[in-house]
Amino acid sequence: MLRVPELVHHGLYWRSAVTANDVARVRSLVASTGFFNAAEVEVATGLIADRLTKGLRSGYHFILAERGETLVGYACYGPIHGTRNSFELFWIAVAPEEQGRGLGAEVYARAEAAMVEAGATRIYADTSSSERCAGTRDFYQRMGFREGARLPDFYAPGDGKIVFVKAAAAESRLLR
Amino acid sequence: MLRVPELVHHGLYWRSAVTANDVARVRSLVASTGFFNAAEVEVATGLIADRLTKGLRSGYHFILAERGETLVGYACYGPIHGTRNSFELFWIAVAPEEQGRGLGAEVYARAEAAMVEAGATRIYADTSSSERCAGTRDFYQRMGFREGARLPDFYAPGDGKIVFVKAAAAESRLLR
Repeated sequence: MLRVPELVHHGLYWRSAVTANDVARVRSLVASTGFFNAAEVEVATGLIADRLTKGLRSGYHFILAERGETLVGYACYGPIHGTRNSFELFWIAVAPEEQGRGLGAEVYARAEAAMVEAGATRIYADTSSSERCAGTRDFYQRMGFREGARLPDFYAPGDGKIVFVKAAAAESRLLR
Repeated sequence: MLRVPELVHHGLYWRSAVTANDVARVRSLVASTGFFNAAEVEVATGLIADRLTKGLRSGYHFILAERGETLVGYACYGPIHGTRNSFELFWIAVAPEEQGRGLGAEVYARAEAAMVEAGATRIYADTSSSERCAGTRDFYQRMGFREGARLPDFYAPGDGKIVFVKAAAAESRLLR
């Protein structure tokens, strides 16, 4: 099991099961960060909607953290189709009022533990090379990812894609 | 328009519209190559099934070549969600009895022309680093792609992903 002793957040309820009203709650959380544009908010919302429609067959899995009635953090991840043991972290977000206290790291740690439990040996996360995503890149590096590939101008001229990768294994322990 | 004077294949009917019985025909064509495993055949089939269910909203576009009643070659491509002008070549296949005469190059050239027409400035194609895919990698290189990134062990231990990329533009002319 995962050990994150310095990062226990009190008063949070964690779950991986999703319910119909999570679609609106994920949309609201992702939009509340102010970080994602409207199209990105719709993509994030679409992943959980797809999960509700198709179930586990969607390939989208979730870790959700609630404080009282409020969804304050979540991650979406899943196996990469056509690969044996590669998983992707599709989305991770923490509500603005909960940021800066390591909750993102705890959300990620729980997502990684679930991926490893499901057989992940490599975890991938795509992000942009843009200045806007500097904090995201720092976050992935703190989580143990390294830059695996860079595709210049992928998203738009001057806005490349960086593929972060982390070798994960059953014995991996995040943040020890 | 695209000029491929040396590569005109006589007696072929080209189309981009898809019909319900193309699902079985694509499955049959892809399986007939002997190159793709059962899971890959299902993925290829799933793309055209998705197009029929969702229409253009699926993001999957097709170029199909028929000789008489037989589907002898096709490509599936589409815009990469979240990017401004990046497209992906998802699938390309030619029937065994038609291989070795440049039909794959003509299928690709028509797909590229359609992508450029739709605004593509970069075209991506993923393939494996395995020996099995040596011919595929040669094909992409002949089509003007270069290796843009390499992710070791992506598909399985020892089987990496190579991302091929081609800068495309309205003035690009394939195979001139």
